Amino acid sequence: MTLLDRTIEGIREPDRTAAAAAQARQDSLTKPQGSLGLLEELSVRIAGITGNPRPRLGPGAVFVMAGDHGVCEEGVSAFPQEVTPQMVLNFVHGGAGINALAKAAGARVVVADVGVAADIEAAPGLYVKKIGRGTRNMAKGPAMSRDEARRSVEAGIEVFEAEFAKAPFGMAGTGDMGIGNTTPSAAIAAVMSGLPVRGLVGRGTGIGDAALENKIKVIEGAIALNRPEARDALGLLASVGGFEIGAIAGIILAAAARRIPVLVDGFISSAGALIAQGLCPLSVEYMIAAHCSVEPGHKAMLATLGLKPLLDMGLRLGEGTGAALAMPICAAACRVLDEMATFGEAGVSEG
Amino acid sequence: MTLLDRTIEGIREPDRTAAAAAQARQDSLTKPQGSLGLLEELSVRIAGITGNPRPRLGPGAVFVMAGDHGVCEEGVSAFPQEVTPQMVLNFVHGGAGINALAKAAGARVVVADVGVAADIEAAPGLYVKKIGRGTRNMAKGPAMSRDEARRSVEAGIEVFEAEFAKAPFGMAGTGDMGIGNTTPSAAIAAVMSGLPVRGLVGRGTGIGDAALENKIKVIEGAIALNRPEARDALGLLASVGGFEIGAIAGIILAAAARRIPVLVDGFISSAGALIAQGLCPLSVEYMIAAHCSVEPGHKAMLATLGLKPLLDMGLRLGEGTGAALAMPICAAACRVLDEMATFGEAGVSEG
Repeated sequence: MTLLDRTIEGIREPDRTAAAAAQARQDSLTKPQGSLGLLEELSVRIAGITGNPRPRLGPGAVFVMAGDHGVCEEGVSAFPQEVTPQMVLNFVHGGAGINALAKAAGARVVVADVGVAADIEAAPGLYVKKIGRGTRNMAKGPAMSRDEARRSVEAGIEVFEAEFAKAPFGMAGTGDMGIGNTTPSAAIAAVMSGLPVRGLVGRGTGIGDAALENKIKVIEGAIALNRPEARDALGLLASVGGFEIGAIAGIILAAAARRIPVLVDGFISSAGALIAQGLCPLSVEYMIAAHCSVEPGHKAMLATLGLKPLLDMGLRLGEGTGAALAMPICAAACRVLDEMATFGEAGVSEG
Repeated sequence: MTLLDRTIEGIREPDRTAAAAAQARQDSLTKPQGSLGLLEELSVRIAGITGNPRPRLGPGAVFVMAGDHGVCEEGVSAFPQEVTPQMVLNFVHGGAGINALAKAAGARVVVADVGVAADIEAAPGLYVKKIGRGTRNMAKGPAMSRDEARRSVEAGIEVFEAEFAKAPFGMAGTGDMGIGNTTPSAAIAAVMSGLPVRGLVGRGTGIGDAALENKIKVIEGAIALNRPEARDALGLLASVGGFEIGAIAGIILAAAARRIPVLVDGFISSAGALIAQGLCPLSVEYMIAAHCSVEPGHKAMLATLGLKPLLDMGLRLGEGTGAALAMPICAAACRVLDEMATFGEAGVSEG
């Protein structure tokens, strides 16, 4: 039995009893019922996820998975591929957006090279678990083998478990780095949602009109060539995915198996979430959609996952920045549930 | 010269130089330009507000202003008026939603009775600055005198200044408590936006269909009777406003005069913000719209203020809960601006 199979087998239904107790408590607190909107729903979901009717979330950990993409040779990105390792070092040195936002949230940043094309020197806080030196060009054949796809998911599980063993955390966040990775993500979105590619593709880090048209054609061509199917998530990941996308799926599955809420960041993280959903539909119960990205296909991905995003702030950076930004909101939702007085306790008349 | 006049005179243009420097820095940081969306805009606005091109915001203070409403005798609310003083005590004892959310944000809660109908015993952390024992019924005449309107705004300024003298804070939030106060707030929204009452009125804490129809008629009647005008904000506050709404306007004006960003909570706080805008249009430059409320008129109020909300999480509690929830987002936006490395510093290639 593989690590992936064992992890999936460990994912159970959320605790409906804890969730019901949390809902009953929310309804007794000194506020009109439902008046804290998504915060109330969130606290009830986290109660079910953790199995604790009054959960308090410990500090978070944001997992930034990095990999490169053979499809970059088709001219799908505004930035050169050398930026992937440069940004990995930026994460390690604390200078990136995710570092500032994780620090603001009191969360740690965990970085893993699961498939960067260049060699990156080992450094404190950096896991090196290369499945390959970038994927192959999906416009010319599958991005990776089926075995590489499984190993990329397992790389995410291993990083999650190693980090949890170092010091437990109360919530996890997913993040990505990989020049060109909106291209495989849009391909996964198209296959999993069944929607046309065109409406799901955006400008990523900022390509112009001609490059956007080319990107659409490249994705349509890769799907026509590799013929991935929605019912085979590992095959889909292999044919048009990416190593970091597989690793993100692994982070999510590991979190679900440990009953830890996992904040799914934006477009690329949601591609990983769709792979996780395909591998284990129950894993969606453990996902919290942190935000809605500017990338046009993200809404369709969230709809396919059946998740409502917490934030909509025009983000399109990735790295787990939206996940970090949403962590204090999850913590706040739990504090409301745990700390507020009931009508009875406070001596407040009910409506 | 009154305290109100002196405060308004102290409100200046934001610092355009600091804002421009912040924008230039944002554009040099290791991310595609604009990829952190509203966070980038927010950091630039806060730079202009504070006059610091790399602002770091100290902890926040949420000001919860409480008052009662004579118009409650028209049956406009789902909760009885006795809830106002009961909830004030709940705030003081730390059991309300705002207490949990402020604690999560590392912010203090400051409560003021500016017009509760019942006597409330003095308590630590509670300012008692009653302008009256509830307003008069606006369905039968003006809610208060013009002098009371001015004094309610000044009560907010005084509470803000007293609290700032105790210990400075880096951001302010507005909050409200007052059974029935969506009714005067909707009236202010209608006059200031010029839109029909019907589209601006909602269910508040949760009234049914018949009570909603009655509420609309009460507001239309009060406006027809008192004939408030948009160009006279103090007259509008006097005729169809509330003491806590005036005090919220005072909190905002005091924050603007001290160049402190002020997070405007939901529907009632935005009524206070509209009064502040009417008294001093420049004060809007210092306001940050924390969230968009479920209450249907809130969108129109934000449009009249010209503000884009940070959050949209289905909140309709008031008390400053949305303001507290948005405080960590403001702090995070400033950390991004201050802490991220530039492309040059990090050795990352530009697109």
